[in-house]
Amino acid sequence: MGIVVQKYGGSSVADATSIKRVAQRIVATKKAGHDVVVVVSAMGDTTDELIDLANQVSPLPPGRELDMLLTAGERISMALLAMAIETLGQEARSFTGSQAGVLTDDVHGKAKIIDVTPGRLQSAIADGAIVIVAGFQGVSQTTKDITTLGRGGSDTTAVALASALKADVCEIYTDVDGIFTADPRIVRTATRIPAISYEETLEMAASGAKILHLRCVEYARRNTMPIHVRSSFSDKTGTWVVAAEDVSKYTEEGQAMEHAIISGVAHDRSEAKITVVGVPDKVGYAAAVLRALAEARINIDMIVQNVSAAATALTDISFTLPRDDGQTAMTALARLKDQIGFERLQYDDSVGKVSIVGAGMRSQPGITATFFEALAAAGVNIGMISTSEIRISVVVGENEVDAAVNAAHEAFGLGNEDTEAVVYGGTGR
Amino acid sequence: MGIVVQKYGGSSVADATSIKRVAQRIVATKKAGHDVVVVVSAMGDTTDELIDLANQVSPLPPGRELDMLLTAGERISMALLAMAIETLGQEARSFTGSQAGVLTDDVHGKAKIIDVTPGRLQSAIADGAIVIVAGFQGVSQTTKDITTLGRGGSDTTAVALASALKADVCEIYTDVDGIFTADPRIVRTATRIPAISYEETLEMAASGAKILHLRCVEYARRNTMPIHVRSSFSDKTGTWVVAAEDVSKYTEEGQAMEHAIISGVAHDRSEAKITVVGVPDKVGYAAAVLRALAEARINIDMIVQNVSAAATALTDISFTLPRDDGQTAMTALARLKDQIGFERLQYDDSVGKVSIVGAGMRSQPGITATFFEALAAAGVNIGMISTSEIRISVVVGENEVDAAVNAAHEAFGLGNEDTEAVVYGGTGR
Repeated sequence: MGIVVQKYGGSSVADATSIKRVAQRIVATKKAGHDVVVVVSAMGDTTDELIDLANQVSPLPPGRELDMLLTAGERISMALLAMAIETLGQEARSFTGSQAGVLTDDVHGKAKIIDVTPGRLQSAIADGAIVIVAGFQGVSQTTKDITTLGRGGSDTTAVALASALKADVCEIYTDVDGIFTADPRIVRTATRIPAISYEETLEMAASGAKILHLRCVEYARRNTMPIHVRSSFSDKTGTWVVAAEDVSKYTEEGQAMEHAIISGVAHDRSEAKITVVGVPDKVGYAAAVLRALAEARINIDMIVQNVSAAATALTDISFTLPRDDGQTAMTALARLKDQIGFERLQYDDSVGKVSIVGAGMRSQPGITATFFEALAAAGVNIGMISTSEIRISVVVGENEVDAAVNAAHEAFGLGNEDTEAVVYGGTGR
Repeated sequence: MGIVVQKYGGSSVADATSIKRVAQRIVATKKAGHDVVVVVSAMGDTTDELIDLANQVSPLPPGRELDMLLTAGERISMALLAMAIETLGQEARSFTGSQAGVLTDDVHGKAKIIDVTPGRLQSAIADGAIVIVAGFQGVSQTTKDITTLGRGGSDTTAVALASALKADVCEIYTDVDGIFTADPRIVRTATRIPAISYEETLEMAASGAKILHLRCVEYARRNTMPIHVRSSFSDKTGTWVVAAEDVSKYTEEGQAMEHAIISGVAHDRSEAKITVVGVPDKVGYAAAVLRALAEARINIDMIVQNVSAAATALTDISFTLPRDDGQTAMTALARLKDQIGFERLQYDDSVGKVSIVGAGMRSQPGITATFFEALAAAGVNIGMISTSEIRISVVVGENEVDAAVNAAHEAFGLGNEDTEAVVYGGTGR
């Protein structure tokens, strides 16, 4: 049998007991005849504790050294996991990202993987050893300095290694049974989806679902690497994230053979809304606003420009952005006030975004109408709207997010066990 | 000016406050015009905490993985130190042992340095950066696995780097003002010694003095690298450890120009004594005892064989060894009981070793007599005796160690400010 890559997050290796439990699962996979490569995150809160230490010695820790510091976290968890496996009688060898051949660019804190040269891993596999690799980290191809991959980095490491090693599957272990039609903490009838396409998963991730990170899914799509999202607390099948044409292969028997129109409902409480009020409605003024935000390195999400009242020749521009960037954006825009001559800025961080995602909506008219009718019936007011080919998102009041998610989930029949809808709503953290 | 290598131990970087204090000292050295290379240990109790974690997941952690785990400790301290230095406006770059080119053999847990290829450090120095290197660790030249150097490893790293970089001096920072004529906690009149030879320092280290490790001093002697042992809490000159012919150069004016006969008194409470009672006094029987201990990988220290009573043709063999190896040795010997036919084994761990060390004793008769008379006057009973060219050691009862150290210290006039006697008594830990 082939290679299985398994990725365990920080909560799966939070303490010695958890590490021993994970070791047993890994050894069981090995004994079933697979070659096993494990990608592991830092234990529990280790990364936060290290960041706290850094802040104690430096108001703005330099990126090179912060990466050096943080990579100590996976070094600890991977060595402990290898020890726990050896205690069970199987040979195990741990490797840092650098040793595993994870080559990146030199952007500290959010490096991108450029290449993977897993020669040492292949030797270890050939020797019959279980391979443990530190997630989240690599080494710069140019400077040879240690880098970290940023948020979702360990998932990306797992998919990158699985692709380079031509693994059969990349298993991402988490503390839930897979990807759900909505956040089960908000929607009681939310169901696990057996399989979902890369494209839908990407839209979900971009819409606030936290279970898989954008970059990891993009990497998997590029290499057509099947991802199996599943619980480290059970042996149940989770959710397969695969190419659109393969979704039906991974759907369990007895499930509807056709894709549901909507796969799932995602939500996001991490954004804020800024409105630039009273912008002169002339060519180039909106561009000046966007340029100022780009120069401040702020990624804006949704953007709406009001139709101007002819009498005033003034318009309003509203956009959403990560709340963490709110202060930076307000400062950057305030500097433009005299140059552009807008009236004022409004900042609102009591907003939330609710999105429906589904490959099926391409061929189905009336989806938007059904969605908006459901929101109206639930008394939810729509602030902004944005759409893609397989997604519709709306901005609503933060305290209306739960009602909106539930209304959408019910309107598209996602709570039904027979659907194969998918998606895990993010928590907005 | 040239390169200064500074080594800071775990207690000097125990927390954020200590790290910031050390950073200021390093920056001051840099501003004085030196190129600075810093070797740093893991913070405070980090190593013990990591070992504790390892024991939680494995009864006998494999060496390769234990080294991977423990090296996370210096990774954390070195990155934090580099950050603290950058906060003070100087560029700093941290390097792991592997990145610094510390090449070792592949004996995990006590690897030996084979070669140092400090190309990356030299580039960083040329760029004007302060270089921070993880102590205690390297990379195996053959397996490319991460190794640790064992006890005293960070001191050895510092001396090895100083030698490879042709530094002017290797400064070892500690929490006392240098090397003393005896442990100041035991002898109130103990004085700091301005300079001492490598050979005397080696004998002191072998006799229980904990301030410098044997391997580090051997490395310095081989490369004639001056070591300056000094306090990280003051700017005072400490103790210079140099070639015998250079000792007088480093002795402060007003000090006696001739070496004192005895440099210092060391003691050791970490040993135990085993006596094999009633061994047949025939050729090969003592060798069988020693062979059994060697095969159990136990380093014995002092050894004494009684003259046998002709009537019985039986003799006793006594030896000292590290207390930690006591159980292993007793088991190994008990297995030999029938083969050799000795009567019984005696184990005594309430012993201590007291040694006087001094290059001057080579040319002076009567040193042993003076030493033993002082012990007798203090009512201390001598159990075993061993000597080298520049050292005399005796085994006494553990509760007589303090009295013996004080008696020897006084007998050789070491408490006098005008001597340049040296040595720090170990704590027996």
